[in-house]
Amino acid sequence: MTEKGSGAPVARTVLQQCLQARLQVKPADEHSEAEFVQVNRGILIYVCFFKGATDEILPKMVSTLLNLRLCETDSGKLVSVLELPGSVLIVPQATLGGKAKGRGMQYHNNIGKEDGLRLYGTFVSLCEKELAAAAASGEAEVTVKHGTYGNRQVLKLDTNGPYTHLMEF
Amino acid sequence: MTEKGSGAPVARTVLQQCLQARLQVKPADEHSEAEFVQVNRGILIYVCFFKGATDEILPKMVSTLLNLRLCETDSGKLVSVLELPGSVLIVPQATLGGKAKGRGMQYHNNIGKEDGLRLYGTFVSLCEKELAAAAASGEAEVTVKHGTYGNRQVLKLDTNGPYTHLMEF
Repeated sequence: MTEKGSGAPVARTVLQQCLQARLQVKPADEHSEAEFVQVNRGILIYVCFFKGATDEILPKMVSTLLNLRLCETDSGKLVSVLELPGSVLIVPQATLGGKAKGRGMQYHNNIGKEDGLRLYGTFVSLCEKELAAAAASGEAEVTVKHGTYGNRQVLKLDTNGPYTHLMEF
Repeated sequence: MTEKGSGAPVARTVLQQCLQARLQVKPADEHSEAEFVQVNRGILIYVCFFKGATDEILPKMVSTLLNLRLCETDSGKLVSVLELPGSVLIVPQATLGGKAKGRGMQYHNNIGKEDGLRLYGTFVSLCEKELAAAAASGEAEVTVKHGTYGNRQVLKLDTNGPYTHLMEF
């Protein structure tokens, strides 16, 4: 599902519809309880960047993901998350870059942590901007929430059909 | 992450770790309430077959998925779902075959319904056999549950880290 005609993808995303989703953004420690973010109706974007990914791909990637018709309205019509309008929960998911080697998984093609963190941060910012621009014209309460890069993604998902899609860029 | 060196994949799976997952297998109708299946700790396998998939790929596919180290033990060690031992929830997910065309998704490469239903049924049976054989040697209560092919997959997922992987065959 690579968008480019040739060449290995530099980012992999998995997309799921949700009615509600809750994600841990800070685990409990001795001083404080765990912290969570939550979205209601909308989409989850699990995202992983590969070696060679640069900021240049991000605007097209965000625009594509937020404008693809991946959400169902109450009447069953397929619309984008911007059109729904719905919320977006972004989940950093380095495991998506895994390749099986024997019985184990290897992640040699994943981008380094520093670059990955930067790309992830910009990806989140761009999603926030696009959603805010779209939401400004409506009355619905929609939001972008996101997990903490590098953390364990403790997640509860409730969906009326995940409608799981793979998109590579 | 195609296992074969060349050629387009004939099946796509997405794998997630779960602590608990509940899936609707029959929607409510005027005569009865909706029916659900549930698994506790283990993995979800979202599966989609493409044109050209045959029964021949299924044994290797099932063996690979159930033996890959995709699950964490309580001490953080990576083991397979058979080793955990954990349960398996199989979710038919034709949307995984989607390709973006403009803002819509197309599914031209997906296998026909009749062949897909047969492959899905055999895939489930093989998973049941492998898990039963592995579970026979232990004391844990593990099980294979699966969604209804062609239905909407109403799902609740609770995970301590989905650890999402893509595997193609």
